[in-house]
Amino acid sequence: MTGVGSTEPAGEPPIDRRETVARKRDGRELADDDLRDFVLAYARGRVPDYLAAAFLMAAYVRGLSPAETAAMTRAMIDSGVTLPLASVARPKVDKHSTGGVSDGVTLVFAPLAASLGLAVAKLSGRGLGHTGGTLDKLEAIPGLRTDLPPEAVEAQVERVGCVVAGQSADLVPADGALYTLRDATATVSSVPLIAASVMSKKLAVGTDLILLDVKAGSGAFMKTPDDAARLAEACIDLARGWDRRCRAVVTDMSQPLGTAIGNALDVAECVRVLRGEERGRLRDLSIAFAAAALAELGGRAAEAAEREAATALDDGRAARAFADMVEAQGGDPRVIDDPDGVLPRAPVRVDVSSPRSGFLASVDAEALGHAAAALGAGRARKGDSIDPAVGIEFFPKIGDRVDAGEVVARVHARNDDAADVAVDAILAPLAWSNEPVEPPALVHAWVQTQP
Amino acid sequence: MTGVGSTEPAGEPPIDRRETVARKRDGRELADDDLRDFVLAYARGRVPDYLAAAFLMAAYVRGLSPAETAAMTRAMIDSGVTLPLASVARPKVDKHSTGGVSDGVTLVFAPLAASLGLAVAKLSGRGLGHTGGTLDKLEAIPGLRTDLPPEAVEAQVERVGCVVAGQSADLVPADGALYTLRDATATVSSVPLIAASVMSKKLAVGTDLILLDVKAGSGAFMKTPDDAARLAEACIDLARGWDRRCRAVVTDMSQPLGTAIGNALDVAECVRVLRGEERGRLRDLSIAFAAAALAELGGRAAEAAEREAATALDDGRAARAFADMVEAQGGDPRVIDDPDGVLPRAPVRVDVSSPRSGFLASVDAEALGHAAAALGAGRARKGDSIDPAVGIEFFPKIGDRVDAGEVVARVHARNDDAADVAVDAILAPLAWSNEPVEPPALVHAWVQTQP
Repeated sequence: MTGVGSTEPAGEPPIDRRETVARKRDGRELADDDLRDFVLAYARGRVPDYLAAAFLMAAYVRGLSPAETAAMTRAMIDSGVTLPLASVARPKVDKHSTGGVSDGVTLVFAPLAASLGLAVAKLSGRGLGHTGGTLDKLEAIPGLRTDLPPEAVEAQVERVGCVVAGQSADLVPADGALYTLRDATATVSSVPLIAASVMSKKLAVGTDLILLDVKAGSGAFMKTPDDAARLAEACIDLARGWDRRCRAVVTDMSQPLGTAIGNALDVAECVRVLRGEERGRLRDLSIAFAAAALAELGGRAAEAAEREAATALDDGRAARAFADMVEAQGGDPRVIDDPDGVLPRAPVRVDVSSPRSGFLASVDAEALGHAAAALGAGRARKGDSIDPAVGIEFFPKIGDRVDAGEVVARVHARNDDAADVAVDAILAPLAWSNEPVEPPALVHAWVQTQP
Repeated sequence: MTGVGSTEPAGEPPIDRRETVARKRDGRELADDDLRDFVLAYARGRVPDYLAAAFLMAAYVRGLSPAETAAMTRAMIDSGVTLPLASVARPKVDKHSTGGVSDGVTLVFAPLAASLGLAVAKLSGRGLGHTGGTLDKLEAIPGLRTDLPPEAVEAQVERVGCVVAGQSADLVPADGALYTLRDATATVSSVPLIAASVMSKKLAVGTDLILLDVKAGSGAFMKTPDDAARLAEACIDLARGWDRRCRAVVTDMSQPLGTAIGNALDVAECVRVLRGEERGRLRDLSIAFAAAALAELGGRAAEAAEREAATALDDGRAARAFADMVEAQGGDPRVIDDPDGVLPRAPVRVDVSSPRSGFLASVDAEALGHAAAALGAGRARKGDSIDPAVGIEFFPKIGDRVDAGEVVARVHARNDDAADVAVDAILAPLAWSNEPVEPPALVHAWVQTQP
């Protein structure tokens, strides 16, 4: 360890940023300018990681006030460029999930909303830990590129109606740096820090509506609906401060949302939903988001909006929009007609049978996510490579009645040893009941800027 | 920022030390083994600074239990070698101050105790911020060396009775690394972290008695006697756990202890006390420590011990022991007879007169320390060089009656500009009263292992 808390370029007076950290450490509120200086200086490499780590831990334990959270968010946005999307004529909607297991909503929602006349420019991230990343999923489609420059993002939104691309390095660079440091210092699961991270990226893009899916449960960062609601409120507060329209919904992550946990598997499931073939929670939540966007931006009543969205899934329009998006990004559009022929397949497939009869009482979604990651579908550390073909399909939902010997899961693995490990990891955390079990609600609560 | 919380050598299983940090973050008590692993791994370079910084901030805000403090202390000791001093026959006493302004007690106490038949092996540090360092002071004596190997330390104690040397890099290396990081991350002033830092170094040396001077007031890390007493109790708790005899005293640092703030100036003042020429708080506290050691290790009654210590100052024995120590460490022993001729002198001397008459009501000891450091007597950052000749003499004590125009301070500077800045810095924080002011007690409280 060398150096101290201040490294200014020649000519600037030295600033002792340990004073900022000490104030937060002692539970005092920071001035906007001090927070702004700290965040921007860190983004520019003028605050060492260890001092930023001390700040993040102090902020985690002491909390940040709404004013501090807003100042931090503004500094993060101002650390880089923004994406105004000024040339896009359609009503623009953005959608973000705080991260879950088998959460393919973005891949269904983006083309579904585009097929309904809206525009979706989704800048996404890669998976980390037990949660999958939308970019990783989409890149399971051979040829598909997500590293698009801002002009290409804007042009594709205008032409196709939707795009899913990687966030460019100069959009909110402070968030990337801070998130990596938070992941390395046990300071991820803080409501204000998550809110600033999520909303800085949403507010930096010029959209007419921001939709947030705040996950609650064993597979999410927020373990309870109450914690998730606090995060949703913090995000809505920020949107209100920027005078931006925003709706957040707290949804269940006590079990995987869909069936597939893995990248090609996720795409295949999304294709089934986009073709109107698969019913269930992934479809229901995708429709709920599309309907919310139609209601906010298209003036539809709630029920009419839901019917319209369901119809676009069932009549092939959403599927066509998906094929258009895939083709525009260099991917093979036949994935919508023949996913099994286009997507990579793992060499080993093992069916997992239920050891007993009963009602499924609980699932550890995080453990399932880790099991899929261990197969190669996810990454333990940033920069790890992933295997697009492997993963887990987990079929029953909480409350389902299962017979002994019934297939409850399918493992897609690179080899037999890896498959064996996954089978054990799937079965171990399941709990069964002899009595009927009430399924958890999919949607816990909606929060929005204008109630 | 790259890397994660675990960097094990090949062959060892990876450990996710973020879990340890997360537990402390959430206010849970850490298992001995987890704390030990974390501290030892950090000392060995296997925990990155940013994760250790997050841990220190979590420990600062959440606190450490007595068991955690003990586990941390033990791991810090076990990070390096110890110094048993087995060959020293005399009763061995160690003395430590938590750091203050014009705190020359060690330079008086070590030869005084030696002249009374005790042995003092004092491993000391350098000054940082507003507090002076004993090594810096002693090295103002031309030729004197403090970088002694352990064998030389032990041999000198046996032969001369006292030594003041730099702590070797392999004694409690974890403390050096953690202290530097704490200084850089606003996590210094935590009772358990200070207690572990102080006591790891004391417990690593084989002595029969540990004396602690815990400073309280504007010039100390602990600003109130209550906070200082908490620190003293935490240190005593650790000594008790190691079955070591320890006495701690909470003393006043609302004003400089002696008159001199600067390295050669400090030595010159200590010489005056060692020759029995200077009365006041520096002499009183040096006698109090020597008497405590005589009482504990020599079985004297308190009053007899005090008389014996005072006599050793007044009859020249302590001065001779100081000269022997200086000579043994390569310094010029004539410093005891002719300090002005031997010690470096600053080219500019400016007397500071009181702008008004009245009773001195308060002094900002920390501000005086910073003013002396700004002259070049101290260092703002570890590794900065210092100027042994410069500093401040501040004459009155709180409660003293001063006349307008009376000289209250003398600045010793490298040039006129620096002197002007110091004069302003000395006068600004002084407060005066027209009514008599009660001087603060020198000793607030004693705490010891066997009450």
